[in-house]
Formats: sequence, structure tokens, C-alpha cells
Amino acid sequence: MTRNQSHRRRNDFDREKLCFIPLGGLGEIGKNMYVIEYDGQIIVIDSGLKFPDSELPGIDYIVPDISYLEQNRDKILAIIITHGHEDHVGGLPYVLPRLNVPLYGTQLTLGLIRNKLQDDLPTFRPDMREIRAGDVIKIGSFTVRFIAVAHSIPDCVALSIETPLGRIVHTGDFKLDSTPVDGRVTDYGAFAEEGDKGIMLLCSDSTNAERKGFTPSERIISSTLDTLFRTYRTKRIIISSFASNVHRIQQVADVASRFNRKIAFLGRSMIRNAELARETGYLKIDSKMIIQVEEIWKYSDNQLVIVTTGSQGEPFSGLVTMSRGENKAIDLGEHDVVFLLASVIPGNEKLVNNTINRLFAQGCEVVYEKDRNIHVSGHASSEELKIMLNLTRPQYFVPVHGEYKHLVRHSQLAQEVGINPHNIFLMVNGDILTFTRNNPPKKHGHVQAGAVIVDGNAAGSIKSEVLKERREISEDGVIAVAVAVDDRGNLLAPPAIETQGVFISEDSRDIFKELYAVSEQAVQELSGLKRANPDAIRSTIKTRVRDVLRKRNSSFAVVMPIVSVKARDNNNIFEKEFF
Amino acid sequence: MTRNQSHRRRNDFDREKLCFIPLGGLGEIGKNMYVIEYDGQIIVIDSGLKFPDSELPGIDYIVPDISYLEQNRDKILAIIITHGHEDHVGGLPYVLPRLNVPLYGTQLTLGLIRNKLQDDLPTFRPDMREIRAGDVIKIGSFTVRFIAVAHSIPDCVALSIETPLGRIVHTGDFKLDSTPVDGRVTDYGAFAEEGDKGIMLLCSDSTNAERKGFTPSERIISSTLDTLFRTYRTKRIIISSFASNVHRIQQVADVASRFNRKIAFLGRSMIRNAELARETGYLKIDSKMIIQVEEIWKYSDNQLVIVTTGSQGEPFSGLVTMSRGENKAIDLGEHDVVFLLASVIPGNEKLVNNTINRLFAQGCEVVYEKDRNIHVSGHASSEELKIMLNLTRPQYFVPVHGEYKHLVRHSQLAQEVGINPHNIFLMVNGDILTFTRNNPPKKHGHVQAGAVIVDGNAAGSIKSEVLKERREISEDGVIAVAVAVDDRGNLLAPPAIETQGVFISEDSRDIFKELYAVSEQAVQELSGLKRANPDAIRSTIKTRVRDVLRKRNSSFAVVMPIVSVKARDNNNIFEKEFF
Repeated sequence: MTRNQSHRRRNDFDREKLCFIPLGGLGEIGKNMYVIEYDGQIIVIDSGLKFPDSELPGIDYIVPDISYLEQNRDKILAIIITHGHEDHVGGLPYVLPRLNVPLYGTQLTLGLIRNKLQDDLPTFRPDMREIRAGDVIKIGSFTVRFIAVAHSIPDCVALSIETPLGRIVHTGDFKLDSTPVDGRVTDYGAFAEEGDKGIMLLCSDSTNAERKGFTPSERIISSTLDTLFRTYRTKRIIISSFASNVHRIQQVADVASRFNRKIAFLGRSMIRNAELARETGYLKIDSKMIIQVEEIWKYSDNQLVIVTTGSQGEPFSGLVTMSRGENKAIDLGEHDVVFLLASVIPGNEKLVNNTINRLFAQGCEVVYEKDRNIHVSGHASSEELKIMLNLTRPQYFVPVHGEYKHLVRHSQLAQEVGINPHNIFLMVNGDILTFTRNNPPKKHGHVQAGAVIVDGNAAGSIKSEVLKERREISEDGVIAVAVAVDDRGNLLAPPAIETQGVFISEDSRDIFKELYAVSEQAVQELSGLKRANPDAIRSTIKTRVRDVLRKRNSSFAVVMPIVSVKARDNNNIFEKEFF
Repeated sequence: MTRNQSHRRRNDFDREKLCFIPLGGLGEIGKNMYVIEYDGQIIVIDSGLKFPDSELPGIDYIVPDISYLEQNRDKILAIIITHGHEDHVGGLPYVLPRLNVPLYGTQLTLGLIRNKLQDDLPTFRPDMREIRAGDVIKIGSFTVRFIAVAHSIPDCVALSIETPLGRIVHTGDFKLDSTPVDGRVTDYGAFAEEGDKGIMLLCSDSTNAERKGFTPSERIISSTLDTLFRTYRTKRIIISSFASNVHRIQQVADVASRFNRKIAFLGRSMIRNAELARETGYLKIDSKMIIQVEEIWKYSDNQLVIVTTGSQGEPFSGLVTMSRGENKAIDLGEHDVVFLLASVIPGNEKLVNNTINRLFAQGCEVVYEKDRNIHVSGHASSEELKIMLNLTRPQYFVPVHGEYKHLVRHSQLAQEVGINPHNIFLMVNGDILTFTRNNPPKKHGHVQAGAVIVDGNAAGSIKSEVLKERREISEDGVIAVAVAVDDRGNLLAPPAIETQGVFISEDSRDIFKELYAVSEQAVQELSGLKRANPDAIRSTIKTRVRDVLRKRNSSFAVVMPIVSVKARDNNNIFEKEFF
């Protein structure tokens, strides 16, 4: 080999590489977003959101930091969506206006996205391209095969992506339900075929990696419902479930029909999703069975099923307003039974529990998680995950969509079925896994990744400093001390103090007198200078006020000093520095 | 019957009454406190605390409102404690100094109380009277029999209280563990005996009324531990559990001894509780087996068990500092395995989950709830509750210690075993259930009851207004606008604005300019009056600033206007109104 050849070879090696980069979904349940990049071409898989926990007060939702995609916008060929759940599509109202690229998804998935965009971006018209399970399409250097999978929403797909360096299979969310409600079984054959062709990398759903055995079929809900409808034959039945779980609504409708009950949908998202699913044929209910909630007075208790939202205790949902006795359409009482057909999503325990207690207090009977088989998961448990690993027999494996503990457990499962631990990569958001033709893949380097926090209407990245401040003031409140001084730092008026959320013990009068005194003194000590020094005044007041509060053991409130300085020229008192 | 007789009868009827009044523990898990009152004599059962949830930012703990007891202090003969858990004794540092009355409890219970008081009230010496299960003592008109019950802490008792109007049995927290670790079985015989004598009222623990079947014996932990110690033979073992669960620590010690491992206790409450339990004989560990955590370097991994706190993800506990890599004594790594021998208390899910994820990230193996039988409850499940109801065959029944849903379920169980629904009372804190000699009991009237919130060192009742303010500022932050005016309302210096926890979108410069302008204008509009009107200035600034923020869709922050007014006499600028 001449020196020149070797040089060329190294260049080839450098150029021809494939990167897998998770931007969201690793180390967390939520905000799924994965990037596959080859030769200046990017495809993005999913674009989800995550709901915040109590550590982020006042935040509406969280989406992945897409700085990397914004910087490489020209390279992006497509966003491919696996299914219509919020943790896979909820980021689109934030992402699409910033990266206006074609969006691929199945019929129901795109329908749900359209509804969502209508609310948030009514004038925005993205380029949406409908695909079906079984389709094979070429997107740049990639050939994408869509594979049917079962989950807790219809029309889900996994992806097998052929790249010049090898095949990547991304399962999306899935379970191996052998008797799905819509008969659309996870396509084992397709996974096996791809496995036979050879899979370089498998990325598989880790949500239920901790669960032993198999996830039961969604269909078991039918027999549970049958028993419940029989048990509560004389009562009015109220059912709360996820608005997107069309399979479950189908089963409710089927049982309702057998028991000659009419269905009334309640709650905006429930009504809208049911409409969309019926229009597109995913939900099959005879229109004679459906009544408006305004008509329920025409029917007796045992002729009615009311299907509503609120299974997660969402404050303005149908179920929660009923539990408070504040629903305009439905007053609950002893003649009612409520079925909560959903499990509690971690973080919502308190909201759901309060709702259940309030429902009992309304006098009705409540059937919920602890009681019976009223919910099954949409995610594969460990035995199913092992089957997926055996069907696909990948060379390399990245567990995706899970907290760190789920990823660890999933990697242990992969080792059990014989995957070499060195071929398994535990990644975090932003990690780059690089494949080349001649060398084993390597995890090296990082792109910017993290969370963008969407607060109210102001979609943007909130600084962590702001959140830290919110947490601090939420703990013990805030004490604001205002002083106005002239240009030499002399007090113009007595200090003023206001508090918000501050608890001061019985002798608060004394304490406030002392706070006024030390604030005044702080200003006086710093007065008579050539020029007032507002920074020094602020920090001295802060220290003195804190000392008093600490010494008297009365509060750990945040102290917020505010200083206004009068300019030298009396006619121009408003000349001031802008922060 | 003469008119006179009838009059006397009515008086007798009125005078001879017995009241049962829950002050805490109904509609909630936590802060148990029950009052029994007869003829101007009161005994109090338990005095617990409750930990706050995220809706009460910055609060340390919550105790029952004891206004009723403070008003009737002279009538109180005793506080009887059933066992040493926080939800039964944690309120004592607040309650005892306010009601200094004799305290009855078993040896371990009083020991735990002594430790607790030493921290909080080092100079306080309450009148403590030790009793044992089996004892019968007279307290005023009441005769109290103490009955052994099994639970997740040793030395627990139930109470059978003979009163002139009938017998009241209060179970305390219990389970019917047939093979308890200490051999101290729940005393079925005593309950049956009391049942034979006739029980007017049963008050029974509802915590696990939702659970079917029987709660497993604490002893199953031993066999789980045996398997785990075998599986992780070569690793260093770290075990996290409740410091008060002496039975579980005993089982850890026994297994450790079989596997020739030394035990090191870590964490202040763990060390102190283990000491107390060993001194009093409830925990039996050969002193040769115990080492200090400073000595662990002398031993190899397979010779060690470290027992620590933190099973609930408590921020400063041993386990949590280890998971952060910040523990002075222990650095975790691949040679370690952590067992979390406790279930997650509702509300702590997030803390525990974060801890588990961080432990995995330290590289160690973690065994926790989802995996195996590593925790059993200390409370009776539904079959046990029915046995208790059948053993005691009470005339009347009040389910206690539970959220509303638990109380409803428990009352359904009571109906299943044949108790007339009219003889079951669903009560809330503060309700009065009154028994008389000639008429059935009635729930009527109310005493003051509720929560006293203890914040930092300032033990006192925080106004709900303060908590509402904290919640508001925690959502969107606070914007303080300070203005100083002279006695006629003329601005003395430009307005000053400071924020805390506020998120303002990109064009914040513009928004702030507008905020300064509207604040200044608000003051100017109200200036030149005979006398400055600070209230009007405050409310006008508040409205104007809010309008700008709303109009520009930029923030829902709390607006806090601060006005200082300079008095007419320049030499006396500090003459000002005290709020």
C-alpha cells in the first residue's frame, strides 16, 4: 500500500459514517426524539413532549432541545412519527415551525397531529405524507420499511431503516399482543425477515423492561367490562379512560351495545378523538348508539354509559369536575358507578387519589386500579422484549425510551439472550454513536441536548436560574425591601417592605420594626458618597435583613432588595441604567 | 310519670353521655389523634404527624389542630400512645408543651418518644408511664386494657377501654401476622374475650382495607434475604430500610450472621434506633457482629453489610448521599449491591425513583420493589379486618386511620360480615359521635379540627393565605415594583423593578420599558393630591403592570407593588404607619 492509498483509505473511513443520536427519551419516559445521520442527510424519528413534575413549578410542558437540528436544518429530510401519543408527537407544535420538513406517519397518527396543530398553530400547513404499515419508501440514502406493531393506540409502526452501512430497526412503542382488539398483530414476520437480512442496530422500547413475563392482551378488558356491566346492572355507568386509547373505547362500545346502553362522550378531547377515530374507521360504533350528553335525561340509569376524560385527575377534565360536583351535565350520586379504566402515570398519583376520594364522597361506587383487571399496559414486558431481540438478532443494541434503570434492565435482558455486553450501548440524550464500515461502533462526542421548557404561551428555553428562583420562593416566600435614594445615596423616603408567602411567627411586629431599622441603617452607612452605589446598598440590605430573620429564627424567605436612585438633575429623574 | 320526673330523666339523659371525637387520622393517612370523653374526663389516643405534599411548599410537617383539647385542658387525664411510628407520636413535641398531661406507652414506644423529645425539647420532662401489653389500668372513669398486636415496629398495643356506657376497642395499627419475627402474635384471645364481654364501639385500622386477602408475614423477608445474600455472595451489600422497623433489621442481622458478614449502621436515626432497640432487648445482635462504618476498610466486600436510611429517598439520608457519590464513608461501584427493603410511601415515588436511577448510574446493582418480595406491609388486609370484626363483634363500628376511600371500603367489609349499615359511622376529623344510655348513638355537632402547619422552627398555624401566596409565586414568579413618593404623591425617584423566578420572552427589554412607563404614569395620575394615597397607587400599579404582561402574553407572575411615602416634615421622614 502506498502512502497515498493509505491516506485515501483514511479519508473514506472518516467520510462514510452513520450516527445515531438520541435527543430525547433516554434517561426519561417522555419526549422521544432520535436522529439518524448519514452523509449530510438526517432523518428524525418522533418529536415528543414530557409533562413536568413538581420540581418545575408553573411549567406547561417540556420538549427536546433541538439546537442540533436547527443548526443542521438543511440536512433534515424528514420527521417520521411512529404513533400518535403525546410523548411522540407532542413536541411538533414547537418543532415544526422551527424545522419545516416533511412529516411521515400513518392515517390516524397524522389525523391526531392535524387536530393538535389546529389548536396551537391554526394557520400552519406542514407537509404531511401518509404511509401505511408494509410500505417501503426511499428518503435520500435511506430506505424505510414501516412495520405494524400493537400498542395502546391504533395504527402504530416500527421502522426498519436500510442505510449504506447497515440496517437500523427502531421498534417505537410496542407490545406483542396476540389478540389485539383491531386484529392488527405486531408483524413478527416482518421483524424476522429484517433479522434474516441482517440488522446492524436495534433500538427497542424499554418502558416495561422491569416487568416480568408478558403484558396481557388489551382484549382482557372486554371480559372485565362484561363482569362489571353485569355487577352494576342497575346503575348509571361512567367510564374514564385515555381519549387516545381507541381500542379501549371500542371495547366499551361493544359491551355497551350488548347491554343495550347508549354512549355519551364527554370532554373535548374525548369527543374529538372519538370523532376522528370513527371517521377514519378505527372506531366502529353504530351512530344510533351514540347520544349527546344533553339528551341523557331521556334515558334511565341502566340505559346509559358516559365515557369521559380525567383518568389522570386532570383538573378540568370531565371526571374531576364531576367529583367536585361542578360538572354542568352530570351530577353523581348513589345510582352511579365510575370505572377508572387506566393506570396512574407516575407523578399523577396524588391527583388521581384525590379524585377517587372525592368520588366516594359524592356517594357513588368507584372501581379503580386496586380492584380488578381494568388496565393493561401498551408496552412489552421482559419476555416480549427478549422475543423481539431474538426475532431481530441485531449485531448492536441500544435500549431506548426509558429511565436509566429501565435501560440497565433492558441491557441485562439482551445479555440473557446472548448479546455481547460490548455490543450494547447505554446512551444518554445527546450522545453520538458512530458506525463506520471497517471498525466497531463507538460512542464518542456529544451534541447539545436537554430540555426546552414551554411556559404558558412563551415557548422558549427558560433558564435554570429562573426555575431555581421559583423553587426558592415557593419554599419560604419572598420579602421585598424597597429604598429610594438620591444621587449621593441619601434616603429619600423611609424603606418600604412587602412580603409574599412569608410566615413570620407571633412577634412579627417586633421583627418588622427591626427589619425597617436595619434597612435604613444599611442605606445610611453607604450614604454621603460621591455617587450612590445601588449594588452595595442591595447586598448590604440583603445581608442585614437575612441576619435578623436567621437570628430570630423566624423565616428563611428570599430577600429581594429594590433600590431606586434619583438622578442629579431633578428634572430628569428618569435617567437610569437599564438592567 | 310526673312532669318533674320527666324533667329529671331528660337531665340524666343529657348528662350521661360518651363522645368519640377524631381530631386526626380520618380522611387521611397520618396524624392520628382520637378523643374519648365522658363526664368531664378526656383520654386522648395517639398524637401523630403527617408529612406535607407538594401542595404545601416549604412546610416541615403537619399536626392536628388541638384547640378543642387546649380549651378542655383540665379535663384531660392522659394521652395513650399505641406505638412509636411518626403518624402516632410525631405530634408530641408540639402537643406536650401545650397539654402537659401523663403519657402512657410501652417501653420501646416511650424510648422512641424520649429520643424525639431530646432533640426538639431538650429541657422538657413529661410524665411518662410505662405499661405492658396485658396490663389493665384505671384512668378516671375509664378502665384501659392493653392488648398486644403485631405491626411493623415492636411493642404495639391495641386498647380496650371500659367506660360507664360501654366498651370501646381501638385497634391501633395492626396485622394478624401468625409468625411475627419476635414471636409476639396479635392477641386474638384478648380481642375475643373483650368481644364476649360485649363491645359497644370498634375503631379499626383502615389503611389496607383496599387490599384483598391477607398481608404476608414479616418473616418472609428472611427467605428473600437468604436468596439475595446467596445471589450476591461476592458483593458488598448495602441495605436501606425504615430505621424503626426493628423486625426487619433483626432479620438482616440474622441472615448476615449466617453468611459471616459484619454489620455497619449508617445514618443518625438508624444508629440511634438500633442502639435503643438493642438496649431494650427488642433487637438481638451479638456485639462482635457490629462494626463502625469507619472500620469497613478492614473487611472485604463479602464480609460486609451496611444498613442505612434513605428508603424513601430522603435528601440527606445515607442512601441518597451514596447515590450522589457524596457520602463520606461509602463510595459505590460495581462491587456493590443495594437492597431497598421498603415500599414507597405514596408521595415519595419521585424521590425514590430518582435515587434508584442514580444508584444504577453509580454502576451498582439495585434490588427494589418491582423485583421481589422485599417488603411486606404492617397493616391488616381485608380478610384480616373481617377477622377482627368477627372476633370483636361490635355493636357499632367506626373505620379509622384512612383516606375516605379506605373508610368506605372498610365499611363495606363490615357490612359483609353482618354489621348493620346504620350502625357504621363514616366520620371526618372533628365530628362528634355521642353515645347515651337509652338512645342509639348519633353523629352530631363538630369541634374545631384541622391541620396545624409547622414551618421551620416556627411551630404555629400558618394561615392558608400564606400558602396560597407561596403556590402563586411558585407558579410564575414575582415582579416587585417599588415607588417612593412625597406626601402629595409626587414621585421622588424613578420606579424600580426586581423579579424573582420570572420568565419573560426574548423581547423582555421592550416589556420592561413599558412596565417602567406604566408604573410611572400610574403614580403621576394619582399625584398632586392633598395627601398621597398609597393604597390607590398600589392597586393602580398592580392593574397596569398586569395588563401589560397579559396583553403581551409574557408572564402570569404575581405583581407586588411597594410604595414608600415621605412624611411632610423632612426631618422626620421615618414617621410612618405600621401595617
